[in-house]
Formats: sequence, C-alpha cells, structure tokens
Amino acid sequence: MFMNSDNAGPAHPKVMAAVTRENEGWQGSYGADAAMARVTATVRELFEAPEAAVYLVATGTAANVLALATLTQPFQTIFCAPAAHIHEDECNAPEFYTGGAKLTLVGSGDKLTPEALEASIAGEEMRGVHGPQRGPVALTQTTELGRVYTVAEVEALCGVAKSYGLPVYLDGARFANALAALNCTPADMTWRAGVDALSLGGTKNGCLGVEAVIFFDPARAWEFELRRKRGAHLFSKHRYLSAQMEAYLEDGLWLDCARTANSRCARLADGLRGLDGVSFLHDPQANALFARLPREMHRRLFAAGAEYHLWGVPDSEVEREGGPLLSRMVCDWSLPESAVDRFVGIARG
Amino acid sequence: MFMNSDNAGPAHPKVMAAVTRENEGWQGSYGADAAMARVTATVRELFEAPEAAVYLVATGTAANVLALATLTQPFQTIFCAPAAHIHEDECNAPEFYTGGAKLTLVGSGDKLTPEALEASIAGEEMRGVHGPQRGPVALTQTTELGRVYTVAEVEALCGVAKSYGLPVYLDGARFANALAALNCTPADMTWRAGVDALSLGGTKNGCLGVEAVIFFDPARAWEFELRRKRGAHLFSKHRYLSAQMEAYLEDGLWLDCARTANSRCARLADGLRGLDGVSFLHDPQANALFARLPREMHRRLFAAGAEYHLWGVPDSEVEREGGPLLSRMVCDWSLPESAVDRFVGIARG
Amino acid sequence: MFMNSDNAGPAHPKVMAAVTRENEGWQGSYGADAAMARVTATVRELFEAPEAAVYLVATGTAANVLALATLTQPFQTIFCAPAAHIHEDECNAPEFYTGGAKLTLVGSGDKLTPEALEASIAGEEMRGVHGPQRGPVALTQTTELGRVYTVAEVEALCGVAKSYGLPVYLDGARFANALAALNCTPADMTWRAGVDALSLGGTKNGCLGVEAVIFFDPARAWEFELRRKRGAHLFSKHRYLSAQMEAYLEDGLWLDCARTANSRCARLADGLRGLDGVSFLHDPQANALFARLPREMHRRLFAAGAEYHLWGVPDSEVEREGGPLLSRMVCDWSLPESAVDRFVGIARG
Amino acid sequence: MFMNSDNAGPAHPKVMAAVTRENEGWQGSYGADAAMARVTATVRELFEAPEAAVYLVATGTAANVLALATLTQPFQTIFCAPAAHIHEDECNAPEFYTGGAKLTLVGSGDKLTPEALEASIAGEEMRGVHGPQRGPVALTQTTELGRVYTVAEVEALCGVAKSYGLPVYLDGARFANALAALNCTPADMTWRAGVDALSLGGTKNGCLGVEAVIFFDPARAWEFELRRKRGAHLFSKHRYLSAQMEAYLEDGLWLDCARTANSRCARLADGLRGLDGVSFLHDPQANALFARLPREMHRRLFAAGAEYHLWGVPDSEVEREGGPLLSRMVCDWSLPESAVDRFVGIARG
Repeated sequence: MFMNSDNAGPAHPKVMAAVTRENEGWQGSYGADAAMARVTATVRELFEAPEAAVYLVATGTAANVLALATLTQPFQTIFCAPAAHIHEDECNAPEFYTGGAKLTLVGSGDKLTPEALEASIAGEEMRGVHGPQRGPVALTQTTELGRVYTVAEVEALCGVAKSYGLPVYLDGARFANALAALNCTPADMTWRAGVDALSLGGTKNGCLGVEAVIFFDPARAWEFELRRKRGAHLFSKHRYLSAQMEAYLEDGLWLDCARTANSRCARLADGLRGLDGVSFLHDPQANALFARLPREMHRRLFAAGAEYHLWGVPDSEVEREGGPLLSRMVCDWSLPESAVDRFVGIARG
Repeated sequence: MFMNSDNAGPAHPKVMAAVTRENEGWQGSYGADAAMARVTATVRELFEAPEAAVYLVATGTAANVLALATLTQPFQTIFCAPAAHIHEDECNAPEFYTGGAKLTLVGSGDKLTPEALEASIAGEEMRGVHGPQRGPVALTQTTELGRVYTVAEVEALCGVAKSYGLPVYLDGARFANALAALNCTPADMTWRAGVDALSLGGTKNGCLGVEAVIFFDPARAWEFELRRKRGAHLFSKHRYLSAQMEAYLEDGLWLDCARTANSRCARLADGLRGLDGVSFLHDPQANALFARLPREMHRRLFAAGAEYHLWGVPDSEVEREGGPLLSRMVCDWSLPESAVDRFVGIARG
Repeated sequence: MFMNSDNAGPAHPKVMAAVTRENEGWQGSYGADAAMARVTATVRELFEAPEAAVYLVATGTAANVLALATLTQPFQTIFCAPAAHIHEDECNAPEFYTGGAKLTLVGSGDKLTPEALEASIAGEEMRGVHGPQRGPVALTQTTELGRVYTVAEVEALCGVAKSYGLPVYLDGARFANALAALNCTPADMTWRAGVDALSLGGTKNGCLGVEAVIFFDPARAWEFELRRKRGAHLFSKHRYLSAQMEAYLEDGLWLDCARTANSRCARLADGLRGLDGVSFLHDPQANALFARLPREMHRRLFAAGAEYHLWGVPDSEVEREGGPLLSRMVCDWSLPESAVDRFVGIARG
Repeated sequence: MFMNSDNAGPAHPKVMAAVTRENEGWQGSYGADAAMARVTATVRELFEAPEAAVYLVATGTAANVLALATLTQPFQTIFCAPAAHIHEDECNAPEFYTGGAKLTLVGSGDKLTPEALEASIAGEEMRGVHGPQRGPVALTQTTELGRVYTVAEVEALCGVAKSYGLPVYLDGARFANALAALNCTPADMTWRAGVDALSLGGTKNGCLGVEAVIFFDPARAWEFELRRKRGAHLFSKHRYLSAQMEAYLEDGLWLDCARTANSRCARLADGLRGLDGVSFLHDPQANALFARLPREMHRRLFAAGAEYHLWGVPDSEVEREGGPLLSRMVCDWSLPESAVDRFVGIARG
C-alpha cells in the first residue's frame, strides 16, 4: 500500500533488463554510445519531429532547470503556477541555473489559465529596466495536483505566450501519465500546440533515473550541451541512461506503465468515492488522488501500514480532533491492484 | 510641480558644497579617506552603536542587495512584501547578488504584518531539502506606498523573525522620512527593535548619490567589503561619497530635509482632501501621497505641467472615460511650497 | 584494446547484480533508502571516521563542484594544478557552483609541490579587498597524468594549506587506484594527512555512475545536502546509487578492481619499455600510461583497432611526418590481459 | 609627491564646476537627463560612430564586468593578460557578473602578443564540451604596467580574435593616456582596429567617478542596460555622472589632462634615468613609471613623504638589506611639476 510517491517503486523489469544488457564491452562515453543514437531516433519518430534535439539527464530537476536556463536570461522572469515543482520543490535550482532569474507565480494552485497568464505577463515590464523582463512560460503536465491540461488548454496557454513572443517549456515528469489520460499524440500535446521544449520523464514511471529533454528547435542545442556539462549532469557512462530510455520507449512500455498507474488511481478513487466524510479535491485525471478523509480513517490506514502524504499539514495533525484532512495518494506502475483493494477495504472499515 | 519621484531633484546646497570642498589634494582611495572615518564615527554616535560597521555605496539597490547577499545563503528565501523595491524594482538584483536565493512574498501590498509573516515563515521548510530554507526578513521603511512602520510594528515583526532565528534587514532608502514621521531615535527604530542591518538613504533626500549600509554586528563586515568590491561598488575616489554623507548627517540636515519633504506632502494632502471625486489610498505618513483623482483633474494637472505617476496603469489611460485613477505624488526636500500650492490650485479647478 | 579512458567499460558484474537486486519493492527516496545507511556505515568504518558525513552523486564533476562549493566563498580562489580536472574538464562547473570563485593555477603540470603551493598562496591577498581571497587547496589523487601523491606528499601539501587555515579537498575520482598503488589505509591518505573532504570515485572503477563525497567534519553536511538538491543532483530513486556503492565497497571489490587496472597498466608499460623510439612521460604509478611512441607505431596500433588518445595534439597529427607523439593509455578493471598483450605485440611490430 | 595612484587626486575644477552647475532643478532620472543625451552625441562624434551605444557607470570595474558579461556566456573563457585588472584587481567580479565564466591568462605580464593569443585561443576547445568555450579577448590600454598598444598592435590582436569570431573588449580606464601617447584618433584605436566595445575612463583622469561604456554595435545595448540595472549600477540621479563626462570630453579636457599626466611621468623618468642603481622595467609610455631604485633611495623618498607603491613586495622589504626594489609611480593630471622635481631632487640625494 505504498502511495507516498511514484519515485520510490522499482524500475520495470524490462528497463532493468536493458540496463543489464547494456553492461557489455566498451561504449563511447558522454553520450556517444550507440544506444543514445537510437533513443534520439525513437524520440524524433514518436514526436514526429525529425529535427528535435534530444538529451538525457538523470533527474527531473536537472531536466527542468537545464532546459529553462537555456531558454531564460538572468534578467527575466519565468511564469509558472504557484504549485509548480520548479517553485516549490527544487531548492532554488531554477534561480541558480538561470543565474538569478525570477519566478512569477501566476494565479493560484497548480494549473495556469490563459486569463491569469495574460494578466501576469501583461503586468510585467510596466517598469521598463527596473523590473524583470518577460521570460518563458512553464507548464507542468500532469500538474502537481494530478490534473491534466487538455490539448486545447495547452494551445490556449501557448497562444498567450506566443502573443508576447515567449517560449513555452513543459515539465513532463509525468508526461506519459498525461498522454495516457488524453489519448492524443505526443506531437499534439507539445509542438503542435506551441510547446518549444519539454522534459519527458522516465524516473517516476518505470525507470531507475532518466529524463529526456527535447528541444523542437535545435538552434540552442549546443548551448544546452554546454549547460549540461557545466551543471555536472553529463554522464561519462551515459550508456546506462540511454539503455533505460530505450527500453522505456520500446513497444509502448512507457504508455503501458502510465496506463497501469492511472488505472490504479482510478480504481482507488472508485473505491473511496462516496464514503462518509470522503471528498476529492478534484476527480483524479492521472495517477494522483487528492482526497479529504476523516481523521479516523487516516488513523486506520496508517495503522495498517498504508503510506501516503498528508497535504499541507504535519503528520501529527492526524492524531488531533477535527475535520477531514487532505491527503495525496500517488500510484505508480508497480502498485498491485491488490494493494489498492486492500487500501480501500481498510478505508471502508 | 515635479512630484514624479524623490530621485530627480537637486542635491542640497550644503551637500554639494561639501563635495566641492572635498575636491582638494590627495586622499586615500577605496574608503581610506579621512572623511569616511568621520562618517563612521557619526553614524555610530547617531545610532548609539559603537561597534557598528558602516559602508557607503552609491545606489539604493546596491545597498539592498549587498547587505542581503551578506545575510543570505543561495538556498534560502528572503521574506518581503510584494510591493518591496527588492522584488519589483531591482531587475533581479537580489537573486543575482545572493547567487540565486528566492524572494517569498508575504501577504499583499507594501507592509508586512506579524501574522502574515509568521504564516509565511512557518509555511517554508515543510519540504525539507526540497524547498528553499528560511532566510532574512526584509522590511522597507518608509514603504513603497509611503507608509511608516511604527516602532512597535518593527518590534513585532523582528520578534517573529527572531523566533525563527532569522536576521532582519531594513531598506531605509527613505529612513529619514520615517524617522521624521515617527519622531523616535535611530536606535529605537532599528537595533533596539531587532533590526540587524539597514541601508540609510541619502540619494532621495538631498544627496547626489550615496547610501550607508550599517551592520550592528560587525562579524560579517569583511564579507560585506569583499562583496562590495566583487559587485564593483567600491569607489576609488570614495571621498566624494564620504563628503556627501558627512554633510548629510551634519547638524541634522538629513532630518531637516526629511521634515520639509514630509510637510510638503502633508500640505498637498490637505489641499486635495475632500475635493470632489478625490480619495486617498491612505493618509500620507511621510513624503508620498497615493491619491485617486478624477480623470479630468489629472488632465488639467498634466496640461499645466504637473509631473507625477499614474499607479498601475499606463499614462494613456487618463485620456479614456472612466472613474478616478490612482496616482502617486512624491515630494522631496527641494519642492517649494509654492509648487504644492499651485498644484492644489489647479486640482481645485 | 580499449584504452581511451576508464569511463567507457562495463560495470563490474557484482555491482550490476547489486543494482538488479535492489530493484525490488519500495524504498525511501532521496537518500532515505536502507542501502544508503549501510553505505554510510561502511565508509565510516573504512575511513576510521565515525563522524564522517557521506553522500552519493552520479558524476565526478558533481562530487567535485558540490564539495568545493561547500568549502569556498564566491570571493575566494581555489588552488589547484593547471592540469586539474576542475580546471580543464568541467566547463566552468567550479566557477558556476561556487558562485564565481576563481581557480589559481599552482606551478605547472598535474602535481602540486609544497613550494609552489606556498608561493601561490602567499602571492594571493597581497591586494587586500581587490584580489580574490584564499580558498581551498584541491588535490587530485591519482593526478590527471596518472601519478600518485605519497602520503608524505599529501601531508606536506596539507601542512602548507593548514598554515594558512585553508581546507583541503581531494578529487578522488581514482582514489582506489591510488590506494592500491600506495598500499596504505584510506585514513592515512586523507584525514590523518590533513584532507578535509574528498570524493571517492566509483564510476571509473567498476560502477555505472556513482561517487561518494565524504566530509570528515560534518559541520557543513546540511549545507552540502542543500547544495546537492539545488544543483539537481539529489536522486529520487537514490537506492540505485547506494546499491552500486555498497557492492563496490563490499569485500574489497573496489581495491581488487583498482589492483587489476593498475597491474594491466604496469604490464603495458613493461611491454613497451625500451622499444625503439618509445619513452614514458614518467613511469606509470597507477592505471594510466603516458608514452611517446613513434608515429609509425601509432599508425600500426590505430590500424589494428587500438583505442587511446593522443595527448595535446589532434589525431590527424599522426599522419604527418615527425617525431614521437605523446599518447595516453588508460586501463580499467575490465581490460583483459590478452588485450594488453595484443597491443604490445602490435607495438613491437 | 603623491604617486601612489591616479585614483586619489582631486577632480579637475572644470569637472567639479559642471557637477555643481548640474545641481539645479529637476532632471529625468536613470539616464533620462538632458546631459546624457549630449554625452551620447559627443562620444559618437569623437569616435566617428553614429550608431554607438553609450552608457555611464561610476567605477572602472563596473564598466569592465558589465561590458564583458554582455559579451560572454557563462560557459566561455575570457582571454586576458595575467596582469589584467579584471584578473588581479576585481575580486572575482568578472566571474560573478558573467555567471561563472573563466579567465584564460595569455602569455605573461601585462601585454598580449598575437602569437601568445593565437596559441591560447587555439589551445581552448580541444576538449569539446568538457572545457570552457572561447569567449572575448580583453585588452587593457594603457596596460597595468603603463605600456601602450600601438594601433598596429591592437589591429593584430583583433585580427587573431576575429579569425576565431571572438569579440574584443578594451579596458580603457586609462584610454586618454594611451590616446595622448599615440596621437591617433579614438576610432583608429578602437573600432577601426577591430575593438567591439570599450570603457572610456574618466575617474583616473580628472573626474570624481565616471566611466563610459561604448558598444559600437548597438545590438546588445538593451541587454547591457538590463545588466547594469541588475548589477545595481544604474544611478537614479544619473545627471551627476553625465555632467562629469560632458565636462571631461568638452574642449579636449580629457586629452589635456592625459597629456599633463603623461608629461609629468616623462619628467619623472628623465629625472631618475641614469642615476646609480636605478633602472626602469621599461621606458614609460604614458603616466606610470616602473622603476627599480636602490633601497636607500626608497628610504630617503619615503622619509621625505613621497608616496608610491613597491611592486610585488611588502613595504617592510625596504628596511632590509638587498638589491634595488621595483616601485610604481603613477602621475595624474593634478600632480604639480614641482612635486616631480622635488621627488627627483630627493632621489638624487
């Protein structure tokens, strides 16, 4: 009943097998391995983007901040949601990598709206040289609260960005979960909608630790490579990153894993929906459920060994009297149906 | 009728005379001039702080960001008001100088409250290593909207900061205006209330361009000196900064200038108060008035050559139909009473 | 006959097996995995340093720059050899991570001498606030030219650093090779000799990609953790780093691999020594041989598929007429004796 | 007999008078003052560069590092002489402002040669993504050792830079002294020779504190403005910078001051040349003399109140036995002939 996060489960056996298989003989280092060439070809094909520049790094934060640093000048500001990982969970890595750019928080919560984005962008640069200049728009798909931007929503947001000449970056740590939810093509959700660069997460969805960074316009590819090296994120034995990503994208494994994760989450929601005192922040759209549960239900679950996070309050809160407490349950590909069912059983009491 | 800002008037004749007087013979460079030794002694006496480290720089932004960089680690966040100069008007200089620290916006508007500060500080570090760590609290006195923190308010805010072990920095670009308004001692408004470091502005109040940075605890003084040099803010012919500050602090000139500026602003408010369609954001407490005026009154004033800023809307807005528009009038020491009276006369129509 | 580098061979089967074994169930993320606790205990025991703080990252550059950034202020300079990896091969990562510190190149070549270090340190800070301040001394063991500092040499260099109150960092990307060569204890070569922090490399010696950073004084451990996160080097599925390092240090595997690599290199040197036109930059002390070979010998070797680097000249140089060309051959644990023998055979013609 | 530096004398009376004159009424702030428009026009005319972007800052270091940061990517290296101010005397400001770029020291001493520059540039980027990329070439005119690049020398160095597509920056803290020495036009010494950007120093040659930064190609002008603001170097009461520069450039005052300074230095050299035990590092070409004097002569001069620097050794050295000690005497416009003559008289004993 591990639903703390999707970053604590094992790698998919096919991914692990690929890593093991890769462990033969010598390979070019620093990205010159044969597997990387195949990964680039595969990503280009999947995204219908024959010119795309494709790079691998080992952490989602590295993907985010290296891509953003390539798109941002230090005197600019990045527009993002207040709940964005780049704002809340990267210990100032974006500020560090951009050389001191600012993050402008747009609206509230996890999801940008075109109206809030428009207002936020319009509001900057009223101060000329005194305020930060407008920089990239950063979306997260799926969002930190487990929601999914529809293709039309991505288009609308990119439209606002483009009307100001700003690039759009998409943090796709859970890209596959969103794609599985939307049932569209990678191209539809990205460059066709106006996205300029994205991360394509593997770590949370069946890999050991690998994320692809994709630039649809390769003009700044070399700069990215230099920033990756300067950030100490260029692996000498890069082959092991490549092998993971190759297996992950092969035969749709990435989407299979995402669909499994999403369906576990739906099953969990179905099991909890309608129980006394239970309500959802919103209906789950991918692999994360944000649910308010009665404290007594939390206690029962924790006592039975369920693992998940209370959201925005310390764990100790569960022992006190009071109303339902918001919690986050995240399902990854490895979570068995039986664990979901057991969780629901305990919740039902 | 120049009320655009307090950064566009002339220097006080006594300050200018001091600069001219200083222009004789050779002097030690880089702060080793005789006048600087006198400035340090004077500041220590005025602030009843015999150990204080005192430095001069030429811009308010330099004072802010060098002091903050000395107090902040790059993985921390600085707590400040959304309207703070360091957030809105320094083109990411704090992020640059701190090596990428973040600014956490506390509450709304220009003025911190202890409750909002407490909530904001408490909210950070729930994420351990993932989020930024708590850093300094930055106050602005007088605020960007011309308000003054009482000594009790400064004490309460510092109390919150201290309860978390955080240092407090005070942006005193208009320190003299606040002091004149509060009629307290410099020590009461700063170290006795819990302030660790501040800037003492001269530029907006009768100088050509000089600000003192004061650290009550000299432990990090040498680091400040290195950061000043590294920031390219150490003047070789430092004597001209010293001469300004010396004249500014001599015989209470700084407070005289501030009192004059504040009284001009009060006169302006008295003249506008109660006019049809006129309302104030708040009663002016120092040298800045934020007043909503009917558009037709704005047009009349602009036509007559009055200079001031519309606040938050482009100038062109004044030509359109609609309700009153908020404007900011700032008075400096050099604004004649007659200019205020003429302004009021035109406003009255 | 792959001797290009020790970063292109496979991981040792025991290391790979450990990674595969680790791929079961859920584990605490971000370093809270069970294996990491065991790694910390093992490192402390091996280094006889029960208080040491131990961290894992995935690249040698990350280890170097995160450790150095923790030890260096941005207005300081790091003393290192001109051939140091941090100077030549990290694309300004040290300057980036330290917030703009400088590297002062001491003497020439790959190895510091106490005399050159003393002169270099003494030479800095003659300019007071104008020049950079003295920062850490960075050693590389084994050096970029494959040489080993004896324990006495490390002690002497640390002695110079300590006499100025400067910390010493040791880049141990090839720490095991040095230890195998010196046949001393880890403690002797590090903290007992005066080293404050080091990286303990795994990547080049049998791992997929993992390096330990060790601080003997844990006072700045938390700062390191924040810098690691801020640098995007904290792995969510950290368990796979831990598993590598655990297997690497178990039952002396790290030293076995290093001894194998070193002995291959010795065999290679033995095979080439005395051949017509062949000379060595210095006798190999660990796993790298720098040898001048006649151009015709290079051509023969390259034609037969030998892989190694010409040093300081482009590969095309080998086709031109002229004297012997310097080359670097690096042996890793996976290089078979037969490959060495074949290489020698071709060289002998 | 003050020859410590050219940064410790008074401002020229005409410059001071201009500052005083400027102290009337209100002026646009942040560079929007009327005087700045005139300065821009004058600089463009003097440099025969009608498109040039012209900015003012208050310190030479600010001019250097803001211009270089505009021309340099953080993953590049700046080519400069080991004695360059940007390397030795700016406490890592270039590394700070560029976001961590490196400085590659070319050859030895104060002056670049085309051969050394070519070798140094060619040597970088042999390491691809691993080493820093080639960035700007930075010259200093006059050099730190008081020498002057001829126009042909500047052309040759720019030629090397251009052959690699690299921009050239000229640190002209003592530009006027060089111009006076060469008796050429500003255009000849700069853009016609291949210089892309320069600082035009005022501080050391009759001003209180002002340097112009000139970009011949205005393409990156706006970026410079943002970097200046972000660096806290944009003055609100900018008029006082403008007034200095305006007076400085008016009627050839800048060249008059430089000629005076240079001739004082020549007179000093003439007076010392040939004395027993006296030798020059090189014949003075502008306003600085580097002379080896017998220790007893130093003692006599110091005892009589002469002020100048021993070069590369602590002052205490003068009390010990030994050979002549190198010293630096710098003459500014304000040094009277009589002071020179008195100095020479004492030296002669």
